Amino acid sequence: MKLIIAIVQDKDANRLSNDFIEHNIRATRLSTTGGFLKSGNTTFLVGVEDERVDDAMEVIKDASHTRQQFMTPPVNLDAQLDSTSSYPVEVQVGGATVFVLPVDQFHHF
Amino acid sequence: MKLIIAIVQDKDANRLSNDFIEHNIRATRLSTTGGFLKSGNTTFLVGVEDERVDDAMEVIKDASHTRQQFMTPPVNLDAQLDSTSSYPVEVQVGGATVFVLPVDQFHHF
Amino acid sequence: MKLIIAIVQDKDANRLSNDFIEHNIRATRLSTTGGFLKSGNTTFLVGVEDERVDDAMEVIKDASHTRQQFMTPPVNLDAQLDSTSSYPVEVQVGGATVFVLPVDQFHHF
Ligand code: NI
Ligand code: NI
Ligand code: NI
Repeated sequence: MKLIIAIVQDKDANRLSNDFIEHNIRATRLSTTGGFLKSGNTTFLVGVEDERVDDAMEVIKDASHTRQQFMTPPVNLDAQLDSTSSYPVEVQVGGATVFVLPVDQFHHF
Repeated sequence: MKLIIAIVQDKDANRLSNDFIEHNIRATRLSTTGGFLKSGNTTFLVGVEDERVDDAMEVIKDASHTRQQFMTPPVNLDAQLDSTSSYPVEVQVGGATVFVLPVDQFHHF
Repeated sequence: MKLIIAIVQDKDANRLSNDFIEHNIRATRLSTTGGFLKSGNTTFLVGVEDERVDDAMEVIKDASHTRQQFMTPPVNLDAQLDSTSSYPVEVQVGGATVFVLPVDQFHHF
């Protein structure tokens, strides 16, 4: 048994939650702020059998890994008309920090 | 020294908090949502000496284990009068998920 | 790699957050209540290399250790004029509870 602590961006948390359910992985969600990945993080506590750690890691990685995304910057109404302002820009989103901890005992009551 | 992470239903959290105090067990309470036990969970972080792990486990089990409870379903005002609607039904409440983690160092500053 | 779980008073949390940044230590902040240090706690999750555990511990200790502080009690407007009521009194503030946990795996995605 291992305890996985996964810290992801808020924007990836719902997707990850659903993916855990889909893979029959039981996770508990904590609200967090700041730190590893700027503000707006969610921490998941995930208990898995040793042989399912790699599977859980894939699920976390798939849902929350760092990737580039095109985003249209918000229009600045005070600015002079600027033809470049409506172009989408590439930004980095996502990212996860994950700890796998040894577990001495695990109980369901 | 061990770190116990106990995830219980919100409805059992106050009782468990009081029981910890009664047993002189120091616990920190985190708000959590969803996962192991549906939405509305509370996570406790509990630091205990090795020889008190079993005692702490009993306290957690007593306060939050799964049990049947009779509950009167809310009356549905839109429904036709139905003589069964006011009978109490048996529902499952409670339940705890508990991890006991090894600790390398423990400090009070 | 170690995972440090540090529980400090809310009033020390911002200072500790800044000190972590200053020392290039990445921490995630969880909101917590009650327990180890009365109500109003903040829990930090900190991932550090083994050789930086002592450094992180110093940072936590410096920002949040128990200390005496002089505080002027709030003026009681309903009370009779009392010359002692405006004298500052010494109160104990701060305090941290810290766990250092072994880590099997650590990943950034
Ligand atoms: Ni991808
Ligand atoms: Ni019982
Ligand atoms: Ni000092």
